[in-house]
Amino acid sequence: MRSPREVAVVGAGLVGCLAACYLARRGYEVTLYERRPDPRHAAAERGRSINLAISERGIDALRRVGLDEAVLKAALPMPGRMMHAPDGTLSFQPYSADGRRAINSISRAELNRTLLEAALGMPGVRAFFEHRLTGLDVDSGRMDFATPGGAVSRTAPVVLGADGAYSAVRARLQSLPGFDFSQDYLDYGYKELTIPARDGEFALDPGALHIWPRGQAMMIALPNPDRSFTCTLFWPKSGPGSFAELDTAERFAEFFAAHYADAHALMPDLADDYAHNPIGHLVTMRTDPWQVRGARAAVGLLGDAAHAIVPFYGQGANCGFEDCVELDRCLAETGDDFPEALARYGARRKEHADTIAELALANFVEMRDKVASRSFLLQKRVEHGLERLLPGRYVSRYELVSFSTVPYADVQRRIAR
Amino acid sequence: MRSPREVAVVGAGLVGCLAACYLARRGYEVTLYERRPDPRHAAAERGRSINLAISERGIDALRRVGLDEAVLKAALPMPGRMMHAPDGTLSFQPYSADGRRAINSISRAELNRTLLEAALGMPGVRAFFEHRLTGLDVDSGRMDFATPGGAVSRTAPVVLGADGAYSAVRARLQSLPGFDFSQDYLDYGYKELTIPARDGEFALDPGALHIWPRGQAMMIALPNPDRSFTCTLFWPKSGPGSFAELDTAERFAEFFAAHYADAHALMPDLADDYAHNPIGHLVTMRTDPWQVRGARAAVGLLGDAAHAIVPFYGQGANCGFEDCVELDRCLAETGDDFPEALARYGARRKEHADTIAELALANFVEMRDKVASRSFLLQKRVEHGLERLLPGRYVSRYELVSFSTVPYADVQRRIAR
Repeated sequence: MRSPREVAVVGAGLVGCLAACYLARRGYEVTLYERRPDPRHAAAERGRSINLAISERGIDALRRVGLDEAVLKAALPMPGRMMHAPDGTLSFQPYSADGRRAINSISRAELNRTLLEAALGMPGVRAFFEHRLTGLDVDSGRMDFATPGGAVSRTAPVVLGADGAYSAVRARLQSLPGFDFSQDYLDYGYKELTIPARDGEFALDPGALHIWPRGQAMMIALPNPDRSFTCTLFWPKSGPGSFAELDTAERFAEFFAAHYADAHALMPDLADDYAHNPIGHLVTMRTDPWQVRGARAAVGLLGDAAHAIVPFYGQGANCGFEDCVELDRCLAETGDDFPEALARYGARRKEHADTIAELALANFVEMRDKVASRSFLLQKRVEHGLERLLPGRYVSRYELVSFSTVPYADVQRRIAR
Repeated sequence: MRSPREVAVVGAGLVGCLAACYLARRGYEVTLYERRPDPRHAAAERGRSINLAISERGIDALRRVGLDEAVLKAALPMPGRMMHAPDGTLSFQPYSADGRRAINSISRAELNRTLLEAALGMPGVRAFFEHRLTGLDVDSGRMDFATPGGAVSRTAPVVLGADGAYSAVRARLQSLPGFDFSQDYLDYGYKELTIPARDGEFALDPGALHIWPRGQAMMIALPNPDRSFTCTLFWPKSGPGSFAELDTAERFAEFFAAHYADAHALMPDLADDYAHNPIGHLVTMRTDPWQVRGARAAVGLLGDAAHAIVPFYGQGANCGFEDCVELDRCLAETGDDFPEALARYGARRKEHADTIAELALANFVEMRDKVASRSFLLQKRVEHGLERLLPGRYVSRYELVSFSTVPYADVQRRIAR
């Protein structure tokens, strides 16, 4: 029997690394197993969600382990949305009533490296890369890995799956009776494109998340520290104006130039991005429970492995970081009874993850369709007016989600009132 | 490239064998691959849904390939429900207004053997047993199998997964982007028990499906040709009166004797059944789509592999048999364009499978709880009265589901009107 102070974390992505920091602070010996090569030496995968938005929930989780400043110094604050009409007209909508609160654009790869280095800088944390989980025995905590040097097995009394939407840990739990699971894909795909810096400067206002709402489709752009923008095109997979219909570089470029004219003029690499960046998929995954207690081990899920959501509320990483805070809280409450802490953590977090999953789906419709409408703009003005008239009494859902740590389901209940 | 008239059917259970009969009749060369040993020689697995109820949908599907008589001669008709109150009072409720229509109790193993022999008796059908699917390439139709003689690979232009709720074929499709899936377990388990023949005769009326409704739990019993009854206990997994609470032979027997007294007196093998029969799980699985078109192959799902449902409407096998009829119809309509026929079949059957899944869940509440109540009995009497007053105009949902081939979703729409 191994020491119960030992934890294996499968997945050294954002959530796995932050979880390692929290656990190391509590005195656990943490081993990270990651199927990809060491990100400190490897090139980023092309066209795979290059950047993301960190907001208050994520910052709070980082702050509690002293990582907020290190992370935020590489981030670009976006205090509002900049809407791009088809004719190129711009309109800016602040995210908060006072116009000062911002969500923060950050490079996923950069954030991952920062968190990995922070974790490995703490006592008792180590990491193995190119370790792909191929088997997991819930009762003994035995993990089998495929590595470049052949198959290896390791055992730990606690195994945490922080290995993302296509989690190998969750796949093992799914085969156990009583484990509910669902995966639901949108009929939309995404493709990443680039607006490079122009004469060494940002080609668009870097103080905004840019949106090109086009009814059944949209594009967004987030600024990068190198003064480029990463654009993400969200298009239907089939039907008119879809990836399937616009399946040659010529058709794509012609359609893109017609509907996203102002952006098109800023994209010299469009043909290359189109040809080389894959079409990504948008999936919502739900699991229940998030943990299993075996005879001599406990297994739990964190982040996308437990609750993959679509990206339209900018909350995926933030929600995963909140998981780390809640697990840490449950460990403190239970005197580090890990199986009991995992059960408590899963029971508490489930409704909040379910809520943000629904909000993220609903926000897609809002972003691609409603943000451009007069009634939406009017509603936002009314909301912000209410917020100024009743400070602290009326706060919009967007602000509660992005600029507070009120649990997601509590936000929904508060808004419903 | 193999002949497009070749079809691989993974799973030689009820639905796989019937599908093979339908396909052979259309002139296809069909190879069945089954992970279990040949059921014509092997003993049945203990305590795993020994019998089931075949009703009009299943009989219709068998009739179309001339198998109805062979199957029904081994079946026992059950024209109604016999309710067992806690004090032993019996009340009979006919299933149909005229009291003559019946669902049919049949041994799963016996039915499987009949269908397998029918399939293998048709030209072009063969079967390989102890072949467990370990890999499937959707583009080439290559299947990898683990067999007692080692790993083998086979290729077919059409692969049909009829391999049940825990389908290995579906597991492969699930990893493809755009493939929606869910599994939802009930917080109930089941255990099979036996009421043996008494002095060579049935110990209970063989002309009924027996139900012991007990609010949050229930037991049912179906007659077997050897004059025994197979009972299935549906109990909560945890909480009061659950499998978890009653986890020793003594506690179980005491509770059982108190709440199922009339049955208990007929069960000399109770302790043995309790000790050796496993607790089964009750799961609803949904998939979308039911088929994938690869570059050089098409893959489709039939039966529980596409739509596992809970057993409370007695429609699992019936629904799977209807899949075979619909696929056959779509092949006829498309001139045997198999990929197109599979797409059409999946699109048509999906809403009906979703409907019976919901009805089956709802019927659990009705069976364990409402069937014993006065208002339920009154409603049934009113329904049957309406049926006699308006013959052909008013038919209850139960009759439409069990004694017609009106598609399930159409039944729901008709009842809603």
